[in-house]
Amino acid sequence: MQNFLFYNPVKVLFGKGQIANLGQEIPPAARILMTSGGGSIKRNGVYDQVMAALSGRAVVEFGGIEPNPLYETLMRAVEVVRAEGIDFLLAVGGGSVLDGTKFIAAAALFEGEPWDIVKGAHLSAAMPFGCVLTLPATGSEMNQFAVISRRGTREKLAFGSGLVYPKFSVLDPETTFSLPPRQVANGIVDAFVHVMEQYMTFPSDAPLQDRMAEAILITLIQEGPKTLAEPCAYEPRANLMWCATMALNGVIAAGVPQDWATHMIGHEITAFTGLDHAQTLALVLPAVLHVQREGKRQKLVQYAERVWGIREGSDDDRIAAAIERTRTFFNRLGVPARLSDYGVARETVAAIPARFEARGTVLGERGDLTPSRVARVLDLSA
Amino acid sequence: MQNFLFYNPVKVLFGKGQIANLGQEIPPAARILMTSGGGSIKRNGVYDQVMAALSGRAVVEFGGIEPNPLYETLMRAVEVVRAEGIDFLLAVGGGSVLDGTKFIAAAALFEGEPWDIVKGAHLSAAMPFGCVLTLPATGSEMNQFAVISRRGTREKLAFGSGLVYPKFSVLDPETTFSLPPRQVANGIVDAFVHVMEQYMTFPSDAPLQDRMAEAILITLIQEGPKTLAEPCAYEPRANLMWCATMALNGVIAAGVPQDWATHMIGHEITAFTGLDHAQTLALVLPAVLHVQREGKRQKLVQYAERVWGIREGSDDDRIAAAIERTRTFFNRLGVPARLSDYGVARETVAAIPARFEARGTVLGERGDLTPSRVARVLDLSA
Repeated sequence: MQNFLFYNPVKVLFGKGQIANLGQEIPPAARILMTSGGGSIKRNGVYDQVMAALSGRAVVEFGGIEPNPLYETLMRAVEVVRAEGIDFLLAVGGGSVLDGTKFIAAAALFEGEPWDIVKGAHLSAAMPFGCVLTLPATGSEMNQFAVISRRGTREKLAFGSGLVYPKFSVLDPETTFSLPPRQVANGIVDAFVHVMEQYMTFPSDAPLQDRMAEAILITLIQEGPKTLAEPCAYEPRANLMWCATMALNGVIAAGVPQDWATHMIGHEITAFTGLDHAQTLALVLPAVLHVQREGKRQKLVQYAERVWGIREGSDDDRIAAAIERTRTFFNRLGVPARLSDYGVARETVAAIPARFEARGTVLGERGDLTPSRVARVLDLSA
Repeated sequence: MQNFLFYNPVKVLFGKGQIANLGQEIPPAARILMTSGGGSIKRNGVYDQVMAALSGRAVVEFGGIEPNPLYETLMRAVEVVRAEGIDFLLAVGGGSVLDGTKFIAAAALFEGEPWDIVKGAHLSAAMPFGCVLTLPATGSEMNQFAVISRRGTREKLAFGSGLVYPKFSVLDPETTFSLPPRQVANGIVDAFVHVMEQYMTFPSDAPLQDRMAEAILITLIQEGPKTLAEPCAYEPRANLMWCATMALNGVIAAGVPQDWATHMIGHEITAFTGLDHAQTLALVLPAVLHVQREGKRQKLVQYAERVWGIREGSDDDRIAAAIERTRTFFNRLGVPARLSDYGVARETVAAIPARFEARGTVLGERGDLTPSRVARVLDLSA
């Protein structure tokens, strides 16, 4: 096991009716900016529940944070924070609203050009914020990471800081019943791939972390199709929601190597094509597993057996079968795993390997996913 | 899944050499009381490492906190806190030192009779404290619970408060290499039974929590004997240490019913006999599983299959086999699972059921482990 630091101070309020308790989590005198996305919270009742919980409080609203939240949009929110004397943020929405709110929290107190935050600039302060999550997917509700895009430069970059943990996150599975199937399926894929980025590397004498990662994968495989089939059944949706949170809150990352190449390549594909984040993961992951199968061999065999129950054939057979099962799982959820399924030509993403090369980005748990291998991944994703 | 609140702000520094980093976790101007146990830290080098990390700091020492830490001892430490103007506590030792330090942290700022803390009095403040753990067992290093004994009244009672989370815990597996085998074996049993208290109840549509609990149990079964056989092998000891922490930090408790009858009965047996905490758990758990097997039926069958690989025979056969495997596992670790193995007569613990009755204690996840059933548990433990 590798040395590690584990720290996660997010308070999670999970379950039916928990939005009613959020007022207790925000300082009484706070001036609150409520951030949100495209308006679904006004149609599904979440907005009314939040406003009831904040009755009598000073609340300013900032809606319109888009999927793959844009720097340009978020900087308008920062202006509102300053103009209105805001001192607490409340994100109401999915991972994009929450990631955007993390950026607002950091940018509002940042000296200098805020885009530098996603380029690795040191943060010395951030505003406090909480969250009402309405889409189980990114895990942002219980971690210190955010991914921000910039229209002007077609960039999509991540940052992380111990200063941008939410103070609290309210997770009520009932708020997600009205989600479109595409977003639910995307969430299942996103959570699944988050686990794979931390699990599918090389053995590091961490059997508990392995089994806990497998626990999330198996639960997603079992509960995912159930919750797509019955969107308003509480238990499968609750299980998906908790899986998505546990997939990226640090528990399964403790003491193990990590990959994240699928995400890095996926972010670039979104930047070039506008595909949903999870769609890019569904097409990149199987290809990465294939291209990197020698370095990941032992874990791929373990994954085949423990997650998919594949115990027959040679190791190579099992690995091939496990990759195929993974791709089929995504397809059956309704998330196709080929660029061509989305009408995207291979050439549209041709610039990606050179972009990594220019940035000097190192990919893969061993740093061995070279630009030419990235090109091979893109070939296989086509 | 049940509604839940998850909150655990403990910073864990895990791995070789982490003691050297503890100075950064304690405010520079703090006056520190370093609490410890019977003196093993002076023989195994941990004391020297801690002192080196605190070089130049104001440190007062309070040693001699005993296993099953005594109120009488801890109140002497509270006097030292007041006399020396201490404002930070550092527990260096196992669960008893840490539990005792939690009580000191609370009692030092408590108005009134501090024994009331373990009787459920409301806490409004506690001193900040950290921990260097030297014995993987209780999970106290990453939770808000403590168990305190009182010589005068032969009582052993637990308390919990969000105010007594350690600010940080340093877990270096190498500090545990010199532990006597009995303490290591006790730690394995303790962690195992902590998981069982949260897992072995009734199904609550929480498949991820179930699988994560099973992950800890399986890892303890695999790594426990290895680390007893090779005390100085880093990896098995590291895995035991992380299992013991994960067993009682709230992760597997989220959204599920809990039992804790084995602990409640075990605490009473220790109060009457002085047996080690884990010894009492080893003898009570198999008896509780047998007496409560109807209410726990579905989970016992699941436990038999997933943890012990028992897939043959009727449900009753599997349940009996799983209970027997559990008892045998404890025995093979060197922790006998009968009162008679310790030379304790059944009559010595005869007063326990009446004690629960007098206190009105409700036992079991359904509250159905009545005093007469407790007597049956004690019969089966004899």
